[in-house]
Amino acid sequence: MPTAVGRTCWVIAEGYIPGNSHGTEPQMTSHETACILNASPTDAHIRITLYFSDRDPVGPYRITVPALRTHHVRFNDLDDPAPVPRDTDYASIIDSDVPVVVQHTRLDSRQSELALLSTVAFPA
Amino acid sequence: MPTAVGRTCWVIAEGYIPGNSHGTEPQMTSHETACILNASPTDAHIRITLYFSDRDPVGPYRITVPALRTHHVRFNDLDDPAPVPRDTDYASIIDSDVPVVVQHTRLDSRQSELALLSTVAFPA
Amino acid sequence: MPTAVGRTCWVIAEGYIPGNSHGTEPQMTSHETACILNASPTDAHIRITLYFSDRDPVGPYRITVPALRTHHVRFNDLDDPAPVPRDTDYASIIDSDVPVVVQHTRLDSRQSELALLSTVAFPA
Amino acid sequence: MPTAVGRTCWVIAEGYIPGNSHGTEPQMTSHETACILNASPTDAHIRITLYFSDRDPVGPYRITVPALRTHHVRFNDLDDPAPVPRDTDYASIIDSDVPVVVQHTRLDSRQSELALLSTVAFPA
Repeated sequence: MPTAVGRTCWVIAEGYIPGNSHGTEPQMTSHETACILNASPTDAHIRITLYFSDRDPVGPYRITVPALRTHHVRFNDLDDPAPVPRDTDYASIIDSDVPVVVQHTRLDSRQSELALLSTVAFPA
Repeated sequence: MPTAVGRTCWVIAEGYIPGNSHGTEPQMTSHETACILNASPTDAHIRITLYFSDRDPVGPYRITVPALRTHHVRFNDLDDPAPVPRDTDYASIIDSDVPVVVQHTRLDSRQSELALLSTVAFPA
Repeated sequence: MPTAVGRTCWVIAEGYIPGNSHGTEPQMTSHETACILNASPTDAHIRITLYFSDRDPVGPYRITVPALRTHHVRFNDLDDPAPVPRDTDYASIIDSDVPVVVQHTRLDSRQSELALLSTVAFPA
Repeated sequence: MPTAVGRTCWVIAEGYIPGNSHGTEPQMTSHETACILNASPTDAHIRITLYFSDRDPVGPYRITVPALRTHHVRFNDLDDPAPVPRDTDYASIIDSDVPVVVQHTRLDSRQSELALLSTVAFPA
């Protein structure tokens, strides 16, 4: 089993939380997730910075992903220093003090049937 | 916070804007997007060149992404030097004078329920 | 024809098997797949380790992908040392003794119409 | 405009052409595509080799992508040396004599509403 895999800086250029949803909360709520894996033996201290089209960057949002754990961060739930606006284009940079791996996923339930997208983030 | 992340040349080999749509415009209009993040302290001057299966390349389309901003470029909206044809295979190369990150997304609403795809573009 | 392409360690940071499904089994059952290609002339001995948000890693799951073959591993079917829990966030690291290529796909049929996502895994 | 971008060997580990479809042919037929961009000033001679789970590799399929053109290859249409079986797991390696970029897309219309997936292929 590897002791630390990944990189310390990741970029998700596509960000957008649809403002409405169909179906049972919270599973079917339209949401965006940054899935972070910390396979190292050390806790990872993560800082997320959000970028917008028409205002200054917001952040850092601080999250700890314990050693040997994964954490699927819902952007919908971020609220310190500010909640993430809905129906708004954004992008994010995710920094970590130990190597991690980041994958980006969106569930869009604006219509009655859901749609999904996912991609590994860009390792900067 | 990093001062400049990414690359200066990106490729999206898959391009296709569906010619019809269901649902409320403009959110639910079938569209393709190049989500560009410029996390540098300098404005990014972007040039997009489109490639087709049966005609010469078209471009460059010129876009400025300000310092510390993201811009989600809808290919549907490009019109200088020419609009992007619908229901037509294309590909694109995106050049920048400062490092940026590019992610490609399509929303397809040809049927009553939308479908999504996304991938980080190829850093050339 | 190349004799061996890829890497020996891959990461899928996003993992989630939806707990319910619509449609004909097994094709339309909600599932996650790690598609592994072994284009080398030697059998690949694969070890998959699963990471969770609230418990220790589980594994290795052991799989052999023969020389010059692809194997689309359904996480739903893994059961030794333990089945993969449904409706639970996880991540996975996939190690091989010869270079392989790994792509991650999910089919989500919780609603009556399916949704798909896919991305090449992260080559660590 | 760059004169040649990309790589000469690409891998798509996930392959699967659904055996049935809903909707208007050929746009809504379930299909898999390798979108290839040749941004070089020289024609690209492409060889595609298919890998299966239970039989020897098949190929090469030969395709020419002209200089400064994109070609979206439908796996459904490949038939020399043999058609691609439906409802069957496969993988593919795409070789070129000049650098190209490859992106993989599937449209799945087995149910009445389509689903999409896409990812940049793995540059080997």
